[in-house]
This record gives sequence, C-alpha cells and structure tokens, in this order.
Amino acid sequence: MNRVNVELGDRSYPILIGTDLLEQSGILDPFLDASDVMIVTNDVVGPLYLDKLEKILGTRRLHSVLLPDGEASKTIETLQLILDRLVEHRFSRDCVLITLGGGVVGDIGGFAAATYQRGVAFIQVPTTLLAQVDSAVGGKTGVNHPGGKNLIGAFHQPRCVLIDTSTLATLPDREFSAGLAEVVKYGLIADAAFFGWLEGHADDLLNRDAAALDHIIRRSCEIKADVVARDERETGQRALLNLGHTYGHAIERTLGYGEWLHGEAVAAGICMAAAFSERLGMLLAEDRRRIDALLGRLRLPIGPPELESKEFLAAMSLDKKVRAGEIRLVLLKGIGVAEVHANYPEDEMIKHLDGALAH
Amino acid sequence: MNRVNVELGDRSYPILIGTDLLEQSGILDPFLDASDVMIVTNDVVGPLYLDKLEKILGTRRLHSVLLPDGEASKTIETLQLILDRLVEHRFSRDCVLITLGGGVVGDIGGFAAATYQRGVAFIQVPTTLLAQVDSAVGGKTGVNHPGGKNLIGAFHQPRCVLIDTSTLATLPDREFSAGLAEVVKYGLIADAAFFGWLEGHADDLLNRDAAALDHIIRRSCEIKADVVARDERETGQRALLNLGHTYGHAIERTLGYGEWLHGEAVAAGICMAAAFSERLGMLLAEDRRRIDALLGRLRLPIGPPELESKEFLAAMSLDKKVRAGEIRLVLLKGIGVAEVHANYPEDEMIKHLDGALAH
Repeated sequence: MNRVNVELGDRSYPILIGTDLLEQSGILDPFLDASDVMIVTNDVVGPLYLDKLEKILGTRRLHSVLLPDGEASKTIETLQLILDRLVEHRFSRDCVLITLGGGVVGDIGGFAAATYQRGVAFIQVPTTLLAQVDSAVGGKTGVNHPGGKNLIGAFHQPRCVLIDTSTLATLPDREFSAGLAEVVKYGLIADAAFFGWLEGHADDLLNRDAAALDHIIRRSCEIKADVVARDERETGQRALLNLGHTYGHAIERTLGYGEWLHGEAVAAGICMAAAFSERLGMLLAEDRRRIDALLGRLRLPIGPPELESKEFLAAMSLDKKVRAGEIRLVLLKGIGVAEVHANYPEDEMIKHLDGALAH
Repeated sequence: MNRVNVELGDRSYPILIGTDLLEQSGILDPFLDASDVMIVTNDVVGPLYLDKLEKILGTRRLHSVLLPDGEASKTIETLQLILDRLVEHRFSRDCVLITLGGGVVGDIGGFAAATYQRGVAFIQVPTTLLAQVDSAVGGKTGVNHPGGKNLIGAFHQPRCVLIDTSTLATLPDREFSAGLAEVVKYGLIADAAFFGWLEGHADDLLNRDAAALDHIIRRSCEIKADVVARDERETGQRALLNLGHTYGHAIERTLGYGEWLHGEAVAAGICMAAAFSERLGMLLAEDRRRIDALLGRLRLPIGPPELESKEFLAAMSLDKKVRAGEIRLVLLKGIGVAEVHANYPEDEMIKHLDGALAH
C-alpha cells in the first residue's frame, strides 16, 4: 500500500492507495470515531462494493443512500435527499459520511458533509479513475447549477481518501479513458517526464496493467496533493489544475451535462487550450501534436463537437475563473509548463473558437 | 462610532457600531474591491433601508434580491433564489454579498455567500436588535430543515459587520424585546455585572434610549467576539452561547417556525434552563427568580407554551449539540457562570419537562 499525504496543517490527511483495500477489515478505523456512518453511493457502484465497504467498517450504526448514477443527478435536489436521510436518522454532528463512487458521488456527498450541521467529517472512497486521480483529493465539493458546473459548493477536506485500485476492474472503457485525461493533465502542468512516461506506456494503461495503474494514480495524487497544499482555496497556483476545464465545462454545458463525460470534455478542452497556446505563439506545434497524439491514443476526443461559437463563449464566461468579465485560461508554454492568462487578444480568441467549433 | 474586532487570524474583521452609519458615504469602501455587489434583504427592511445602503455604496454594479420576511422563508428553496440571481447576473468569484436585515436574511444570505462558487465575500448589515447582538457576528450561516433549525449551513465569516443603531427605530416592540433575550444571555453566561446593569436600566432599554442601546450592543458584541475568537467552530466554549437555545429550538419546532419569535423562544428556554439548574441544585432559587424577573420586565415569555412533553423531548434531541444520543444542555451555576452538561439524571429531566410544559 502507498500513502500520499495532503499537508494542510491541522486538516492534513492521507491518501491510501493499493489493491484490495476494501478487503482490509478495520483499515478505516483510525479515521472513524465510535460514531454513526452514512454511506453515500449510487445505483451502479452500490451493488458492486457497498457490501464490502460495510464489512470492513465492523459494527457501527450504518445507513446508506443510493443516488441515481450520472452527472445529471449532481443537483441541489439530490443534495437534499442526503440531508433528509441524515435528519431522518437523527445523525449528530459527530457522524461520518463515506462517499463510495465516482466524482459525482464524491462531490455531492462531500457537499452534504460540508453543510450538514455546518460541517461533519467525511471519507472519500473513489471507485473511478477520474475520482481517484482528481476529484476525491483536495476538498472541492459541490453541485451543478443549470447555469454552470460546480457553481454551488464548498471547500471541505476529507479525513482520508481510500483508493482501492481493484475497483477499476469494473469500470467501463469509456469512463476509464475519461480518467486518463486528468492524468495527462498532471504531466502537462507539472511533470514533462511523467508525460513522456505516459507516451511510453499508453498500451499498458489501456490494458489496465496493475503496476502502470499504481504508478499513475500515485504520481497524480502526489502532484495534486502538492498543488493543493500550497494553494488550498485556489487563489493562485491551484488554478493550473483547471487546464482544459474552462473549455471542457463549456462543452458539457452547451451539450447538456451528461452527454460527454467530464474527462472527455476535459481532453477536448486540453487540445483547445494547446491549440490556442500555439496560435498565441506560446507553444511549439510539435508539442501540440504530441498532446493530441497521446490523448487520441488513450481513446479520448481531441477536439470539441460542432457547436455555435457565440453560445460556447457565453458558456465559457460563466466559468468560476472569470474575473471582472475576463475569461482566465490556463495555457501551455511547453509540456510540463502551464500559466494562467487573461490578457490575450479577444479577436484571436474569437477566431480560434470559430475555427475549432465549426468543423 | 465604536469598533469591536473579531480576532480570527487572517479572517479577522471589525464590527462597526454607531448611529446613522447608513448615511456615511464610502464607509464600506475598505471592505469592497472594485467588484459586483448583490444585496440580500427582505420585503420589510428593503423598502426602509435599501436606498440608503445603495447610496453609500457609490457607483458599482448593484443588484438586490428581496426575500419574503420571516423565519418560514429560511429554507433551501429561498437559498436557491439568491443563487439563481447570482448566476443570472453572472456574478464572479470576486463579488461581494451584503445582507441587509435581521437574522433570517443574514443567515440565508451568508450561506449563499458561503456556497456560491465555493465561497465569496460578504458583509452583514443587521437591522434588528437580535441580529446586531448575535446572529450577524461569528460566521454561523444556514437554513432550517423541516426536521430542525439551522441543520443545514456553514461557518463563513463576514468581512465586516456594520451596525447602524438608528435602524432600531423602526423595529416593532415584539422584535425589539426578542433581541433583548440574547442580550440577557450574555450577562448570564459571561458577565454578572452586565446582568446587574440590565436590571438597573430595563426602562431605558424599553424606551430605546440611545446611550443604553449603544452600551448593550457594544458589550454583547464584545462578549460574542471574545467567545468566537477562542472557539470559532464550537468545539468547546462557544456552545455556552446556546444557553436557552436547545429548549428554544424545541419550542419553535414544536409550535411551527414563526409562531414564536426566536428571541421569545430563547427567553422561555433560558427560564427552563434556569429552572432545571435549580432542580439539579446548581443554581440558587433567588438567582432563578432574578432571571425570570428581568426577562419578564423586558416583555418576554418566561416559560414555554403548553406542549406535549414527549414530542418536545424528541424535538430537543434533534438539536445540533446532541452527541452520541445525549442531549447536552447549557446550565447555570450562577448569574455569569454557565456550563455544558450531559450527565444529568434522565428522570429529573422528564419530571422537569412534564412540570414546565403541562401548565
């Protein structure tokens, strides 16, 4: 088992990574008081892993809530379902929530933990690659608003993240590839050597080779933990983690949440950010081509669907990184080097979008 | 103008107290970036003070949202109205919310600020006595759940609290008295001399003498700021601020929110806590009588309405202070000395409730 620490003073916590961790009875005991536990999961993951999780928790007062699968359920209404259940069972301030599932379950469950009784403890047990390498780490919780993704939420750090890599065996190919988009992102913003390693091991990854998975999950968590430790509330460097996300969120929003998986939209968004970086003379064409090539090999889209550019721009301007009306974009200066930019020529942006979205 | 500081490290903020502060153009400028401002108020306070507030804010992009008056509107649905408005006007992360009104407006508006884009800045401009001496200070925000008061919320500190004591001129007598219940509470938990001062100035208070109001608001804010600075998230001493509240919340919940004002329920709850303290041999009968006498003179109820004690006990056990099934109560050892208790004899509790609620 590997252990990566997220260093946040008195809110520091470990990420435990390994195979068959959901078979290890008592593994979560150090993070649970003698208290009530509410497990939040969904109707796909629950039937697969809920029994296992309950078994390693031992004799506690356990309740669980099964949400509908999918991004479309990431709403305030679903949040209320969880809160209703907590109230119904009279869970007190010293209860613990455990989220078992992908990013949607972790985000909503974490937000329920952040807001129930003004904040209770929670533990993330991510079961998708995307959640394991990204959304379960760092304390971002929340729900979508019809006007934009993740517009409602809170920063609320978990007590522990338990990553059982064996759960990836049941993950559909499309979701697995979507998770790899975030892994590629880490190479692009922070570690050119890791990007190179991914290029050299694309086949191992697609074959879900255990050692390769272990490596990318650990390295991704290390990079994310490092960024989060330095900028928990995204006042600066943490914004780099959003490479591809302003574009990606606009794709998801314009198509309707759930049409494309988040990771797919991020992959297309990374390619758009790379293309815009090249257009502005920041990124070499060769590097841009390497990015497209790797994401393509990992069976991810390397561009957006055909969309109306005006509507797309409006969707981008709802992004949380917008400040004083400026759309702030994470752009690339090279593989492994990213920067936040706001003062690019607007007409270049329009031309870039017109070109990318028209097909 | 008086200034009381709430010392919370990099989240410290001032409480500004004085007459006609809503006439002082630019007074909030130090707490506003060059950013968008959303004012959250209600349909009673808005018509009285919204123009004044807008005037002292100068030329900014201003929007406002008028909530229905009253505790019944303190729901997730009302929260959504505010969030919808923020999204509709595309307010970004660097906007500022200003809450103008009583405790309900401050709690919901503050919770909207806590959760919009995972947290934006906000300023409290409380216009009721209860909000000025209690709810606007300390960063507790939230909404009610059908199953209990303030069950959903967050800790989110404002950037500044602006208390214009002139706004008390328009406050109905019943609400004014309700605010005095919290003022009496501060004397009871922390300052016997202040309690004595209140006994000596009850008539001045009921006549809304400006100097008397200034004194009680400043002293109440000082005591609250001191407690909050030492225990922001209520892991210990801050719980003393809940004297009378476990009983009070149960009254509000059993009668239906809005039947009694919060401060009225707290006054009755304080008397119940004092009576139980006396029953347990902790508090002198004479002190209990002084408490009843002062609250009565301030035109507050000194006992609960006739209620079914089993239902009342169930409502008490939903309180946020419940731990591992125990109802934790703030009890009095004397005037100025309060303690949290959980291990009192349960049969004494039942007898006490049966007596108090049966009439």
